[in-house]
Amino acid sequence: MLGNFTFYNPVKLHFGKDALNFLHGELLQYGPRVLLCYGGGSIKRNGIYDKVMQVLRDAGKTVVEDPGVMPNPTIGKLREGARLARENDVDLILAVGGGSVIDYAKGVSASAWCEEDPWQKYYLRQEEPSCRTIPVGSVLTMVGTGSEMNGGSVITNPETHQKIGKVFQPGMMPRFSILNPEFTFSLPKWQMAAGMFDIMSHLLEQYLSGTDDNTSDYIGEGLMRSLVHASRIASANPLDYEARSNIMWTATMALNTMTKMGKSQDWMVHMIGQSIGAFTNATHGMTLSAVSGAYYRHILPYGVEKFARFARNVWEIRPEGKTQEELALQGIEALESWMDEIGVVRHISEIGVTEEMIGDIAANAIITTGGYKTLSTDDIVKILHDSL
Amino acid sequence: MLGNFTFYNPVKLHFGKDALNFLHGELLQYGPRVLLCYGGGSIKRNGIYDKVMQVLRDAGKTVVEDPGVMPNPTIGKLREGARLARENDVDLILAVGGGSVIDYAKGVSASAWCEEDPWQKYYLRQEEPSCRTIPVGSVLTMVGTGSEMNGGSVITNPETHQKIGKVFQPGMMPRFSILNPEFTFSLPKWQMAAGMFDIMSHLLEQYLSGTDDNTSDYIGEGLMRSLVHASRIASANPLDYEARSNIMWTATMALNTMTKMGKSQDWMVHMIGQSIGAFTNATHGMTLSAVSGAYYRHILPYGVEKFARFARNVWEIRPEGKTQEELALQGIEALESWMDEIGVVRHISEIGVTEEMIGDIAANAIITTGGYKTLSTDDIVKILHDSL
Repeated sequence: MLGNFTFYNPVKLHFGKDALNFLHGELLQYGPRVLLCYGGGSIKRNGIYDKVMQVLRDAGKTVVEDPGVMPNPTIGKLREGARLARENDVDLILAVGGGSVIDYAKGVSASAWCEEDPWQKYYLRQEEPSCRTIPVGSVLTMVGTGSEMNGGSVITNPETHQKIGKVFQPGMMPRFSILNPEFTFSLPKWQMAAGMFDIMSHLLEQYLSGTDDNTSDYIGEGLMRSLVHASRIASANPLDYEARSNIMWTATMALNTMTKMGKSQDWMVHMIGQSIGAFTNATHGMTLSAVSGAYYRHILPYGVEKFARFARNVWEIRPEGKTQEELALQGIEALESWMDEIGVVRHISEIGVTEEMIGDIAANAIITTGGYKTLSTDDIVKILHDSL
Repeated sequence: MLGNFTFYNPVKLHFGKDALNFLHGELLQYGPRVLLCYGGGSIKRNGIYDKVMQVLRDAGKTVVEDPGVMPNPTIGKLREGARLARENDVDLILAVGGGSVIDYAKGVSASAWCEEDPWQKYYLRQEEPSCRTIPVGSVLTMVGTGSEMNGGSVITNPETHQKIGKVFQPGMMPRFSILNPEFTFSLPKWQMAAGMFDIMSHLLEQYLSGTDDNTSDYIGEGLMRSLVHASRIASANPLDYEARSNIMWTATMALNTMTKMGKSQDWMVHMIGQSIGAFTNATHGMTLSAVSGAYYRHILPYGVEKFARFARNVWEIRPEGKTQEELALQGIEALESWMDEIGVVRHISEIGVTEEMIGDIAANAIITTGGYKTLSTDDIVKILHDSL
């Protein structure tokens, strides 16, 4: 059943090889000062920085640069960016990069004119901005997080080993996002693989929850089938535009709030993964893939029917002559075998987690309640052990 | 492959049994004068009129009533509504009804302050408004058209026997729509069936076109599977909230521009159906169902591969031991058998079309070019004959 919900997603998306052509028109809707946020400099090597700077110049903008946004953006960096945005009184924050940079830009937007500490207000207390905020736009260079079409902002506090996601209201979503699949061509293969698993994980967190029948799950199944199909083509030939364009669009559709409408959700894989990220600084998608096998095997007995449906409808496994349990398990095995195909890690030891760290990671993981089993910290310890 | 596109859909949707509770807050965002558009009075019989009027009163609105919007709204009625909106200088147009009423409300919005004749400007010349427009909101009481989340507006000119759809830009979409599945409970069964087929037809028009691989088609498959599943439950028990809520949401998702992004589309079933509607005033969904079997059998040879995929992925027909052509045909047969199950007409003679009318209906049908075969008028005549 679809419960009560409000769906509102006012992000304007320009998609395709010519998408950057729309940036000029978007920029004209804002004042002259732009904070340009980006990461470690890959956009300088692949030429995207030059292209974007040209458009900014042509639109007569004054650009304040804010480089060095790290893969797991820290609250310290965010506080600096907020100061930069405020001191330069920028009219627009333009994030050029992947989910980390866009997540960071939303945090800067909410914090620039906020008198309270953003870590306390937005991430720990999960409040909405009560101050003036700054419009955000994005040019996407990496797929996975869906940050280009949602209000999500995940920030890490290295001092407390906490990595916390805040989902801002629709008014804080990017006003526009530029999605050119070719901008993802220069990504290393492992990073593309991590992004593909991040997409799958978003879909699974929303799908593998609840026992009711709802349209959102059917949309989720369609997106998973598209992802699996395109990922196999893109893994064999990373420059296949058709596959890469489908992966990019699937990523956006997978976390724009659509596939969760009216249904329960899980999100424990993300909670455990984010805790690992706070202790190891590992790539987000890899922290998810490293625990997913053990996590889903752990909760399978509590959601057999949906796992069986997952096997049938996503992996096209025939049910004849099998118990629901056997079918359900084959769905997880198909998922794991696909993970091997695309080349993501399947064990936390591969991303720097040792047995000694498990207690702290488990203790720091936020526990959500929408999944088939509400975990205890002991459950998380067991899952992490099984993932070693 | 996903081609270049812009996706922008800023409609805010409030969904569920409590959705009407959000109307008050929405109304507060607009000035005091509201044009209330509705149809033939069914909302007075089922109590929705009283509920909406109560909310309007509580919000302190002055209401100008514009009842009597017919199932195929005419350009004459639209011109009157535009005069009413202008003379009362309304701040909001609130459409309470199904697609006809919401389509009409968009036309009134674009025409109230337009100095040109709306039939010429919007429907014949397909232009956008160059005048001030009036915000539109909707309370949905019938599912099918998706008008609650798109810019579509289909208007009929009875004098010229033309029924033409204009798709307005996103700024003309409803600002908000209230979707309570219970508001559709009092619909007669034939009208629910017509709505369900309208949804399927929207999905098919977008899906059965093109030979490339794209995520939009996978989303479309998911929506079709959800629709088929829920329609069977709702046909057996029209008051099943779960099924009706899924049908309502599927209708909205099926035509909010999402499943056409980056791909070609057909729309010839709608063009033939709309021409039939202009000559018979038959219910929209029934005009579509009456020609679909013959239409799809006619174009099948030009799109065998996609029809075969339709059979496999939507109807779960096993491909083993069958040629592509056999599999493809079984997909159409499954569609027809589902049409019989939900109870829609399969022949145009059932909705008032006689052999003598076929020439005029064919001549007045607009011909689109995105499908597997660009039809000639002779093709349309043949399809209509096959549909008798």
